[in-house]
Amino acid sequence: MILRAKHIDLSTGNILVAVLSQEDATKLDVRGSDRIRIVYDGFEVIASVDVSKKGVKTGEIGLFIETFDKLGIKAGQTVKVFLEDKPKSIATIKKKLLGEKLSKDEIYTLIKEVVRDELTDVELAYFVSACAAHELTMEETCNLTKAMVDFGTRLDLGNGKIVDKHSTGGVPNNRTTMLIVPIVAAAGLTMPKTSSRAITSPAGTADTMEVLAPVMHPVNKIKEIIRKTNACIIWGGAMDLAAADDKMIRVRYPLSLDPEGLILSSIMAKKAAVGSKYVLIDIPLGKDTKVDTKEKAERLKKKFMHLGKELGMKVQVMISDGNQPIGCGIGPALEAKDVLYILKGDKRGPSDLKKKAIYMAGLILKMAKVGDEKTATKILESGLAYEKMREIIREQGGDPDINPDDIIIGKHSYTVKAETTGKIIDINNNNVAKIARIAGAPFDKGAGMQIYVKEGGKVRKGDKLFTVYAESAKKLDFTLEVFNKFPVVNVK
Amino acid sequence: MILRAKHIDLSTGNILVAVLSQEDATKLDVRGSDRIRIVYDGFEVIASVDVSKKGVKTGEIGLFIETFDKLGIKAGQTVKVFLEDKPKSIATIKKKLLGEKLSKDEIYTLIKEVVRDELTDVELAYFVSACAAHELTMEETCNLTKAMVDFGTRLDLGNGKIVDKHSTGGVPNNRTTMLIVPIVAAAGLTMPKTSSRAITSPAGTADTMEVLAPVMHPVNKIKEIIRKTNACIIWGGAMDLAAADDKMIRVRYPLSLDPEGLILSSIMAKKAAVGSKYVLIDIPLGKDTKVDTKEKAERLKKKFMHLGKELGMKVQVMISDGNQPIGCGIGPALEAKDVLYILKGDKRGPSDLKKKAIYMAGLILKMAKVGDEKTATKILESGLAYEKMREIIREQGGDPDINPDDIIIGKHSYTVKAETTGKIIDINNNNVAKIARIAGAPFDKGAGMQIYVKEGGKVRKGDKLFTVYAESAKKLDFTLEVFNKFPVVNVK
Repeated sequence: MILRAKHIDLSTGNILVAVLSQEDATKLDVRGSDRIRIVYDGFEVIASVDVSKKGVKTGEIGLFIETFDKLGIKAGQTVKVFLEDKPKSIATIKKKLLGEKLSKDEIYTLIKEVVRDELTDVELAYFVSACAAHELTMEETCNLTKAMVDFGTRLDLGNGKIVDKHSTGGVPNNRTTMLIVPIVAAAGLTMPKTSSRAITSPAGTADTMEVLAPVMHPVNKIKEIIRKTNACIIWGGAMDLAAADDKMIRVRYPLSLDPEGLILSSIMAKKAAVGSKYVLIDIPLGKDTKVDTKEKAERLKKKFMHLGKELGMKVQVMISDGNQPIGCGIGPALEAKDVLYILKGDKRGPSDLKKKAIYMAGLILKMAKVGDEKTATKILESGLAYEKMREIIREQGGDPDINPDDIIIGKHSYTVKAETTGKIIDINNNNVAKIARIAGAPFDKGAGMQIYVKEGGKVRKGDKLFTVYAESAKKLDFTLEVFNKFPVVNVK
Repeated sequence: MILRAKHIDLSTGNILVAVLSQEDATKLDVRGSDRIRIVYDGFEVIASVDVSKKGVKTGEIGLFIETFDKLGIKAGQTVKVFLEDKPKSIATIKKKLLGEKLSKDEIYTLIKEVVRDELTDVELAYFVSACAAHELTMEETCNLTKAMVDFGTRLDLGNGKIVDKHSTGGVPNNRTTMLIVPIVAAAGLTMPKTSSRAITSPAGTADTMEVLAPVMHPVNKIKEIIRKTNACIIWGGAMDLAAADDKMIRVRYPLSLDPEGLILSSIMAKKAAVGSKYVLIDIPLGKDTKVDTKEKAERLKKKFMHLGKELGMKVQVMISDGNQPIGCGIGPALEAKDVLYILKGDKRGPSDLKKKAIYMAGLILKMAKVGDEKTATKILESGLAYEKMREIIREQGGDPDINPDDIIIGKHSYTVKAETTGKIIDINNNNVAKIARIAGAPFDKGAGMQIYVKEGGKVRKGDKLFTVYAESAKKLDFTLEVFNKFPVVNVK
């Protein structure tokens, strides 16, 4: 069939879509989500069909920007259109959805097609739901992880002692990464740390590091940073490590679906892609964390270790206390201050965060047989870790001399004080995150919260509990309006 | 947030979509599939967010045609944008996907949101996959069916004896409906038959009836046709009976998913929406039919009867032989000829189709206590059914005097003859459908196949087995090229 190209001035970066009129779709015998091959002047692309109600007339084919670019065509020129078979993985996805186990080949083909944007979001959603309804076996999870690594960018850093860490999350602040990286790098290990930005939290490590230095760099620049400093703390999103994973995360989002097999492969594929040999996994266990029962934590622990073994890594898993925030500041700028205070040996650095970071760094040094917790303490307290962090900040393009007291915090604030004398019986992680986000974090770097108390501690009536910071009076007002819906500290 | 409307000259008729730049999406703290409320001059709409890679700049919001129409806005004017909660059913869908049972309220809210186009295709796909992974209980299926009826168009035809039939499909031709409707309507029953078009078959009843008369009419016209003739044979797609079902069928299509609960509710909601009191269900059981095992057929039978009871209908289920085509012609025009020959008492009418239609009409007459198979035979053979069909054709706007010999068949044909003397051991339904579709059916009404033999019959070398018809020489050539891949008749 010959159709006239209509330019649709839009691109969403997923599968290519071609829009046909109802009449042409019927003539071609295609329905929405069927595939067609579009040929123009020797070039061709495969696109998924969408059927137009308005805007695309009979005889026309609506093409988004990237399709025009790929074909090198102009609006009004004609293309030839042919029916094309569906991707092979459609059968694979259906198989899994009906409860059958997938072979290595099937998983590899699936991931190849995902990476190449050959599947629609609806088809990907069917795969995610298949994994939610019929948990992936360890063998499937291993194959999925390996496929993600093989079809993604790899960071080849040679054969050194490459280490990594991961926290399953849900605890505000908990910014251990920014302490562990300089400690273990100062000890001679290589730690190419890729971190995420916040999705539902007030800050991800990438957001917090960005207060001190840029975190988005091309792969060559990242290699240079690591070559010079043994480390980096960058945003992983731009690197396409495990590219397939990012696409699945997008369709997991609407229902917040977290099938264990997908979480495991998502985390471990990124570790494998940078060549990690020693990996420490922190599973915070608390009433508001993602992993909220001992059983779930223990099951995940086993799976992480099994998967690590399959991938040729040494993996250690710690289950930590995730009942309250670790550190005092919440939000990118306030968390960055906490980290710098600890690195500089300033007494204002929160001791719980320092202690946890040293403990974890010690475990990593021990796995790699270059030290232990004592070594980690010495490296931190001698200022060696701070020196290493300065190097990393400099190489990533930030100011190594930045003074934590100069980090700009939102100038509009409100402090909550204890209404009675008593004991702190609860600090609610979810509400801490909620309030900090409503105040503007992580987009407003200076927005967030400073918490002055810890669970189990005692306060007198009138003692400060926490301060909310916002970058505009309007956002602070708005936060205060919804304050009572999200109680942060419970005193009794 | 205030954004400038950018017109995107496209509409796909599903959920409203608003396209934001990455920067504005981040500022608003929304991700793809989150909902926003767009306000302009007192009007407002809820839309699902898509994040643009190109085409929509920071400060702009890309709106498809229907959003412009609803807001009454022009390109370049500004709108206010607010965050909006996700639809309530998101939690319901997740619940089902994780294996829990849904309440009546949850199902009703879900169907309400589906009908109002408040869910994205990805979210709907999660519901369909939930039903594929965790089969709906009978209670859930009943509630789903009732909800579909309540949130769809109803055809109120009063309290007469309204009857209906359905075949689960997979058998080429099998055009019993076009014989049963005039027989039972001539016996005084009301049969408001809504039929589908072909999806993967060479013709649906709506496609075949369309050879004789138009099948797309507004609801008022349909009521008039039924008032005058006791019956109709129309395409159901335009009527929005069980509107929610059509939307689910769209997302079931990519994986060809047929969860039993969805099939049952899809079929029975349409019967309930027209007020059916007596319903006959035909489950063809054969090696190539949708229902391909005795167990599956028996299980479906029970469920149909249970569901009918809940909906206040008398339902009878027959399991029929679905191993080979019923009738001789395949494709809209050739099937319409078969039907007219039988109605007119012409000997060329295929006896297997006639026999099955009489049997089924007899069952319906018996259920409604107005006769039996003998009555049906008499009505057909006396010409009363033909007279009724002429009325229906006239009222639907066709030519009641149409002569089956004048129905135009594709003029390009090729006849396949037996290469050996022997017995017909197989006629492959799937390959019959495949070849007829490749030849142009159902879009080319005159395309298809005429089959001269039946399974178990004997042929001599050189006897005609079947003829393929196409409307263009090119399509016939193309069909002949792929002929050997899809063997139709097996002689041994």
